[in-house]
Amino acid sequence: MLQEVLSANQTYVKNFGDKSNLPLPPGRRFAILTCMDARLDPAKYAGLSEGDAHVIRNAGGRASDDAIRSLVISYKLLGTKEWFVIHHTNCGMEFFTDQVIRKLLSNSLTTAVLDENGFRDVGQRPGSTEGEFINWLTINDQVTSVAIDVRRIRFHPLVPRDIPIYGYLYDVKTGELIEIPEATEIGRAA
Amino acid sequence: MLQEVLSANQTYVKNFGDKSNLPLPPGRRFAILTCMDARLDPAKYAGLSEGDAHVIRNAGGRASDDAIRSLVISYKLLGTKEWFVIHHTNCGMEFFTDQVIRKLLSNSLTTAVLDENGFRDVGQRPGSTEGEFINWLTINDQVTSVAIDVRRIRFHPLVPRDIPIYGYLYDVKTGELIEIPEATEIGRAA
Repeated sequence: MLQEVLSANQTYVKNFGDKSNLPLPPGRRFAILTCMDARLDPAKYAGLSEGDAHVIRNAGGRASDDAIRSLVISYKLLGTKEWFVIHHTNCGMEFFTDQVIRKLLSNSLTTAVLDENGFRDVGQRPGSTEGEFINWLTINDQVTSVAIDVRRIRFHPLVPRDIPIYGYLYDVKTGELIEIPEATEIGRAA
Repeated sequence: MLQEVLSANQTYVKNFGDKSNLPLPPGRRFAILTCMDARLDPAKYAGLSEGDAHVIRNAGGRASDDAIRSLVISYKLLGTKEWFVIHHTNCGMEFFTDQVIRKLLSNSLTTAVLDENGFRDVGQRPGSTEGEFINWLTINDQVTSVAIDVRRIRFHPLVPRDIPIYGYLYDVKTGELIEIPEATEIGRAA
């Protein structure tokens, strides 16, 4: 896959044009938090060009501590003024639970075969129980997950009170962004 | 900004074509961890179409706990077999330190004015010291940060020993992906 990526990158470089001088802060002053899912291309589904907006992505598009770290930097140091939280239909995060992935990881991984000298083939080892210490942030219902995540961001002590946070669901069958009003409205003036 | 995004989305929906039936697992079985920077479009710089690859993004493209959560899900549940860690030149994460952002946040944020009834204008409040509890994962030197991050992923107990992890730097002046060999080689058989 490496050669394919590098070859595509060479084509991109050839047509890079006038993008060399884009400023660091996002030109359109907003940020999107969305899922890593391969079917989602936020630049395409939201109409972004290079230089327009911050895009934060993780498994599920969840408001993890790390997503909040990124959003606070986005706002406080780089001037974004509106945020979108966008989960999607048919998300992989609906199809497992903490229990499932923890069991899978503890049953099947080979570990303890890598040291500073590189990989040594020492045969199969028991899997790792390290998954017990991770909250995998799985999703039960996407409307609820969008609302929970907007709520977490909205009430975070480092998030400015007046920044709009829009809750949306992306439909992988149509490409459409569907508003989750109960998320967008969280914390709006009563 | 909301109306512009929704209007761009309507255009995307009209031309959505045959993407309705893309499968959930990434077709080209790889994942990219990169920065949220607005100038970076991983789909364009790495030649991705919808359905091809997982894209994980945060401030800096760092190997945070959350990025590792996402990568493990990507591999273990959705079958990716190669990973890229891609930081970039002129990254915002080089231009501040934990001390700087903590001070900025504690000096200037208005907080404690939002409750379940919405925002109440109670005037300026002291900033939040919550930033003290966050490691902002700033970057001193990009070659080093790529190597540190590949190393963290490489030696994580939930990461399979044989998955290739490629360390790269994206040049925002040219669009080019530049290999960081000392990162890519971490943990390779001696």
